[in-house]
Amino acid sequence: MFKKRYSHPGAAPATLHAAPDASAAVVIKLMEYDRNGYEERTLGSVAELPDCRGADDGKIRWIEFNGLGDVAALKTLGAKYGLHPLALEDVLNVGQRPKLEPYAGHVFMIAQMIYHDAEHCLCGEQVSIFICGNFLISIQEDATMDVFDPVRQRIRAGGGNIRTMKSDYLAYALLDAIVDHGFPVLEEIGEALQEIEDTVLTAPGKDTIGDLHSLKRTLMQLRRFVWPERDVVNSLLHGTSEFVHPETKVYLRDLYDHSVQIMDLIESYRDVATSLMDMYLSSVGLRTNEIMRVLTVISSIFIPLTFLAGVYGMNFKHMPELESPWGYFICWVVMAVIAIGQLVFFHKKKWL
Amino acid sequence: MFKKRYSHPGAAPATLHAAPDASAAVVIKLMEYDRNGYEERTLGSVAELPDCRGADDGKIRWIEFNGLGDVAALKTLGAKYGLHPLALEDVLNVGQRPKLEPYAGHVFMIAQMIYHDAEHCLCGEQVSIFICGNFLISIQEDATMDVFDPVRQRIRAGGGNIRTMKSDYLAYALLDAIVDHGFPVLEEIGEALQEIEDTVLTAPGKDTIGDLHSLKRTLMQLRRFVWPERDVVNSLLHGTSEFVHPETKVYLRDLYDHSVQIMDLIESYRDVATSLMDMYLSSVGLRTNEIMRVLTVISSIFIPLTFLAGVYGMNFKHMPELESPWGYFICWVVMAVIAIGQLVFFHKKKWL
Amino acid sequence: MFKKRYSHPGAAPATLHAAPDASAAVVIKLMEYDRNGYEERTLGSVAELPDCRGADDGKIRWIEFNGLGDVAALKTLGAKYGLHPLALEDVLNVGQRPKLEPYAGHVFMIAQMIYHDAEHCLCGEQVSIFICGNFLISIQEDATMDVFDPVRQRIRAGGGNIRTMKSDYLAYALLDAIVDHGFPVLEEIGEALQEIEDTVLTAPGKDTIGDLHSLKRTLMQLRRFVWPERDVVNSLLHGTSEFVHPETKVYLRDLYDHSVQIMDLIESYRDVATSLMDMYLSSVGLRTNEIMRVLTVISSIFIPLTFLAGVYGMNFKHMPELESPWGYFICWVVMAVIAIGQLVFFHKKKWL
Amino acid sequence: MFKKRYSHPGAAPATLHAAPDASAAVVIKLMEYDRNGYEERTLGSVAELPDCRGADDGKIRWIEFNGLGDVAALKTLGAKYGLHPLALEDVLNVGQRPKLEPYAGHVFMIAQMIYHDAEHCLCGEQVSIFICGNFLISIQEDATMDVFDPVRQRIRAGGGNIRTMKSDYLAYALLDAIVDHGFPVLEEIGEALQEIEDTVLTAPGKDTIGDLHSLKRTLMQLRRFVWPERDVVNSLLHGTSEFVHPETKVYLRDLYDHSVQIMDLIESYRDVATSLMDMYLSSVGLRTNEIMRVLTVISSIFIPLTFLAGVYGMNFKHMPELESPWGYFICWVVMAVIAIGQLVFFHKKKWL
Amino acid sequence: MFKKRYSHPGAAPATLHAAPDASAAVVIKLMEYDRNGYEERTLGSVAELPDCRGADDGKIRWIEFNGLGDVAALKTLGAKYGLHPLALEDVLNVGQRPKLEPYAGHVFMIAQMIYHDAEHCLCGEQVSIFICGNFLISIQEDATMDVFDPVRQRIRAGGGNIRTMKSDYLAYALLDAIVDHGFPVLEEIGEALQEIEDTVLTAPGKDTIGDLHSLKRTLMQLRRFVWPERDVVNSLLHGTSEFVHPETKVYLRDLYDHSVQIMDLIESYRDVATSLMDMYLSSVGLRTNEIMRVLTVISSIFIPLTFLAGVYGMNFKHMPELESPWGYFICWVVMAVIAIGQLVFFHKKKWL
Repeated sequence: MFKKRYSHPGAAPATLHAAPDASAAVVIKLMEYDRNGYEERTLGSVAELPDCRGADDGKIRWIEFNGLGDVAALKTLGAKYGLHPLALEDVLNVGQRPKLEPYAGHVFMIAQMIYHDAEHCLCGEQVSIFICGNFLISIQEDATMDVFDPVRQRIRAGGGNIRTMKSDYLAYALLDAIVDHGFPVLEEIGEALQEIEDTVLTAPGKDTIGDLHSLKRTLMQLRRFVWPERDVVNSLLHGTSEFVHPETKVYLRDLYDHSVQIMDLIESYRDVATSLMDMYLSSVGLRTNEIMRVLTVISSIFIPLTFLAGVYGMNFKHMPELESPWGYFICWVVMAVIAIGQLVFFHKKKWL
Repeated sequence: MFKKRYSHPGAAPATLHAAPDASAAVVIKLMEYDRNGYEERTLGSVAELPDCRGADDGKIRWIEFNGLGDVAALKTLGAKYGLHPLALEDVLNVGQRPKLEPYAGHVFMIAQMIYHDAEHCLCGEQVSIFICGNFLISIQEDATMDVFDPVRQRIRAGGGNIRTMKSDYLAYALLDAIVDHGFPVLEEIGEALQEIEDTVLTAPGKDTIGDLHSLKRTLMQLRRFVWPERDVVNSLLHGTSEFVHPETKVYLRDLYDHSVQIMDLIESYRDVATSLMDMYLSSVGLRTNEIMRVLTVISSIFIPLTFLAGVYGMNFKHMPELESPWGYFICWVVMAVIAIGQLVFFHKKKWL
Repeated sequence: MFKKRYSHPGAAPATLHAAPDASAAVVIKLMEYDRNGYEERTLGSVAELPDCRGADDGKIRWIEFNGLGDVAALKTLGAKYGLHPLALEDVLNVGQRPKLEPYAGHVFMIAQMIYHDAEHCLCGEQVSIFICGNFLISIQEDATMDVFDPVRQRIRAGGGNIRTMKSDYLAYALLDAIVDHGFPVLEEIGEALQEIEDTVLTAPGKDTIGDLHSLKRTLMQLRRFVWPERDVVNSLLHGTSEFVHPETKVYLRDLYDHSVQIMDLIESYRDVATSLMDMYLSSVGLRTNEIMRVLTVISSIFIPLTFLAGVYGMNFKHMPELESPWGYFICWVVMAVIAIGQLVFFHKKKWL
Repeated sequence: MFKKRYSHPGAAPATLHAAPDASAAVVIKLMEYDRNGYEERTLGSVAELPDCRGADDGKIRWIEFNGLGDVAALKTLGAKYGLHPLALEDVLNVGQRPKLEPYAGHVFMIAQMIYHDAEHCLCGEQVSIFICGNFLISIQEDATMDVFDPVRQRIRAGGGNIRTMKSDYLAYALLDAIVDHGFPVLEEIGEALQEIEDTVLTAPGKDTIGDLHSLKRTLMQLRRFVWPERDVVNSLLHGTSEFVHPETKVYLRDLYDHSVQIMDLIESYRDVATSLMDMYLSSVGLRTNEIMRVLTVISSIFIPLTFLAGVYGMNFKHMPELESPWGYFICWVVMAVIAIGQLVFFHKKKWL
Repeated sequence: MFKKRYSHPGAAPATLHAAPDASAAVVIKLMEYDRNGYEERTLGSVAELPDCRGADDGKIRWIEFNGLGDVAALKTLGAKYGLHPLALEDVLNVGQRPKLEPYAGHVFMIAQMIYHDAEHCLCGEQVSIFICGNFLISIQEDATMDVFDPVRQRIRAGGGNIRTMKSDYLAYALLDAIVDHGFPVLEEIGEALQEIEDTVLTAPGKDTIGDLHSLKRTLMQLRRFVWPERDVVNSLLHGTSEFVHPETKVYLRDLYDHSVQIMDLIESYRDVATSLMDMYLSSVGLRTNEIMRVLTVISSIFIPLTFLAGVYGMNFKHMPELESPWGYFICWVVMAVIAIGQLVFFHKKKWL
């Protein structure tokens, strides 16, 4: 679900290499807004972006740099806004643990967003966020899809307080969108677990166990990325960064709460999945038991009878029973007695 | 058991939407009391509620706002008493983790109550409590049922010290009622586990494993809501809120104790349930083993005998044994020897 | 093993109700002692107890109040010595977690003692201890049995330093008797585990698994009560209570050590029990495997032979083999070859 | 492996009783040494030991008191050197958790040594160490065997710095010998696990599971005694005892490292043992599976054929097939077709 | 994978013994570099190394001492640069836990590197690093292979900032190379787990479980060495060593991040492996179940029919059915009815 890249071991730190499978097309968008209005542009190159210093007009500028295929553009961006080369290396090496790192002049955050793509497959994508003054730079793995549309809508609509707050609130809004997207994903997992729960006792099959395993695996991955995301929010909340204003903190506390709730849900779904695995195992054991019971009852009843029939099918010259006119009848009676005796025995053992 | 709602991911914080399935009918009740008496009223709208400021008469006012269907009324309530919009969002998004959040001018708490409804089904319901000065506002998911009747009775009766204490004691009394309702629920789970324990060795069936799983699931859910409830009590106890008076602390300590006891019980029932799952698995294995033993003993004895009978049922022209007058008798003797030999062997192996 | 009671949910705190099954008979005993001598009396009512204030003669007074059936007497006792109503509620609601609570004027402790009753059944009983100055009040669930006889003997004998120390040392002596009674109980559990270990591989049966489960359950319960007992001792040791004298601390440290040792033993027995459960499961699996092997070897050898015998038992007119004078002999040879071939095959597979 | 004794519950603290199985013979040895030389003596009684006060000659004196059978001698020893009675009680009650306790005038340590005895059985023995000034008193359970010979050799040889350092270094040397003896023991366990790993897939048997369980049990016991030993070393290292000199600390840090390494090894062997238990279970399951496959293939092929042979062995008057000259041949053909069809089916299912 | 050595228990601390299997050949290399250039030499003996004091020319000197077979040379090296004997003992006793120990005048670090050797086997090797001023001494187990080639290349190339920074940056570069080599190793393990995941449901075999176990074991070993490596980096990062310059800290923070990521991956692969083990067990159970179903269906259908055939193969004189002209036909009909009835029954049970 999540991709994972790492630098060549031993390479110098802060070496930037494009991933071989990264799409070369980079989309750069700029959204400038303040209390009074907003402007939205798609730019052709990093050079067209506004300069960092000459922008003391109180406007918040959200720069979206989507796509990791063009390392040169990324380097230019880094140089323009003074982003630390080690941070840029982490931007390229996707699959990073969410983290927050204060650098001189900017705060660097990594988060992992989770969403359903066009084919409704669950996929993960790394988002890197830099806050430097009134600028917020977000960098995604690719440009086609993300979870930020509601935030863009809110900026355009101008409702709420997003247009009256600073870049830290924008960062909060982005993180909030990322964290809250975990709820529908987990709801779906919860429903899938419920479905498995309904079938595991009646019809346990190979699919069941495969589905269960893949759900567990998804939960593990979510856990791996949500757990540190909570710490990122906590660092923002309790850190002393100059970029985080007191009025944003109440929202960050709310966001922290949400990520704790997500963790709670993940943990309890993991417990449910483990319990279902146990149920599955015992369900299979129970079915084997039931099958064995049928086999045993039928075999145990008929094998002795077949033996008896075999005895009187022998061709010995002198077999007195065969001559008796009641022999055949008595033979049936004996067989019936044996069969009924066994049925009683199995009934007592509750195998019937 | 517990419902769960969340805001649309990416929505602006503090957006209030009614749950589609919330009953529109909201019941607003007001109970005013002090040392000398009490008054109980059901109000038609939020507007009829007493104003926050003009109420310095020392009376405690408990406002019950039951039902989440009428968002407008909730907003009016929030505006009237200065409740924070983020808190109101949590009120609507039921299934929250219990928590305590101090806001300017009021303390906000969420708890999850557990009770048996009219059909004796276990159900959970979120209760939100605001303490602001002498006002206590409690908001429930719906108006039909709750666990607070004993508290209302105590206020009406005037015994004990509930009428002589402040709103923090009322909050304690509500939380106490919520926590203590866990004991009968857990007692029932304990009895169900005891029942399973009694049957798991003698008659393990599909129902057993299903019951066990659903008990485990209930325990998980309880755990998820009781664990943070303990932290809420602890925050009240050791927090520095102006609304919590020293004379209430000894009661909060007692309440803290109760929630620790509940956690203890939940943990030990979880252990018991896990141990029962193991017992179940081994019990099924043991039964399969026993069934196999019967099958093996009967098959192993009769299959060779049947073979022998089959041999002397062959129609070869020259089979000297068939001609012998003792043949049939000797054949029986041989068969008896084989059968007895096997019985001795199986007896030695303790399969009989 | 341990009883558990709780107040009616929602009841006012500090409401005292007798348990319905509590024996009404209450036995009140008083033991007064100092360096020079001791006096032991059984009293008819709480009123005969010495007054708290008028007793500055340096004598230690140990009041035993055994039996929880007479709530009125308990209330009188509480009023006489100023015991906190919440503490008295905990005295009645047996099955409390061990805890230590400082109140103004007295220290309140709850411990759970474990002993074998007259029928050598393991049973648990709650002991509540109040220390107020030179008075120590102990309250037990019932009057018939406890673990304190050695302590009484030591007071009567006057050896050691029990008669020269204060009420805190008496409290230590009582707690020490309670904690040390865990050792023989655990020794017995250890022996039971050893016995199971000896039989689990040779003769695993239903009893084994039931015994193992009940041992695990006993261990869980012990754990639940011993773990907080350690904290009680720690609180006494590191607390700042005026009633705990420095010269008692070295003994409390020793007691703390003992409770840590008990915890250690419980944990390692739990590990052993878990490992035995695994052994049991694999032992059952191994036996099923062995049974299957016998069944498979015998069936696989004789089923083809029986088929062959069946073939030559057919009544077709034209079966050339039947006419041959060597037919019967050759048939036996073929059968022997098949059987020996299979024996070799099974021997190679190590199934024999 | 380790013995365990405890005082009679309720007995007065610091009561000294000899273990019933303790060997009465006590061996008292004295080793005096300083930079210039050493003297080694075996003494007849405690009275011959040098007095504590009159020994300011800078010599280190190591008193070995081996054997716990003579309580009177131990009491004399305690009186002579001012050892605390509670410490002496712990000396007698073997099986104590390793611990360090500072008393006025001396430091008391308990450690558990592990070694192979003459019959190469793993056995544990409690060592109690008192450091009082230049005296070090070590007390062992019995006199026959210990792990301290290399230390004695180093004192005699005078190499290294053992003769130039104080009694704290001697204590370090003894603890080091005890801790380092864990390495060969663990190496052996590692080899035993390796052996089990090699056989568990090819030939899982009862012995395997028994061995595995006893290895796990040994690991548990080691863990129980090594874990607190680390804390003892840590207390020495970071404590403020006057007897521990700064120049010894670098050695204690090294010793601490060793005990952490031992813990690491124990933990990873426990993980390996758990994983092997899983492998064992699945290996048994796999073998049962294989056995079932053979049984099923042979039974499924021959049972229908035998039925067919049985049909044509019936004695009905009118069975047209029997009269046909090709009947017998056709019957064989049909049987062959059935058998081959099944072989193809089983081959497709990969059961062959 | 990793070798493990320990001193003889009881040996004097800081005793240096060569491992019996250590290759005697020691390779000593010296790399001197500064901003302006570098020089690389292979030396014949320790004596040729530059002296510690006379080297204040600002050059960084990296001394590689590869091979542990020549204890005398190691002692000379230690004497020349004042390395602590206890540190040298750890250098020889390979298989140490990674650790950082400050000594007077130098910092001592141990790390464990993991790489694929010439035969692509995973192997581990201990690297000991001493930093003393501008000198960095690295000591490896043997000289043939390591993970430091990229670092040497970077020094030779002079790109990046390795030539402009001090010895602490060189230490960082070496640790970074060691930690980052974990990524490809883990990637391979991840692929192996993926492969097992693909086959475990379709074709579970003995190899699967063996592979899984050995992967788990490798993960355990990695975990055992990576976990403390993180602490080493943390100590460097937050320690107060004079040798660690502030400008290196940002790189160490990055390195810390990498080791946390490695731990994360290890933990999640361990979870996946555990989940696969469960899947394996249930997969085997499911296959046994399926095999049993086939056996049961075939046996249950044909055993009663064979019995019936056996009955009419008996040779009783008086068996009226045999005389009837319809007997044979009716017999077939009855058999067909029985067979079809069973097929319907098994179909209903979903065993077909």
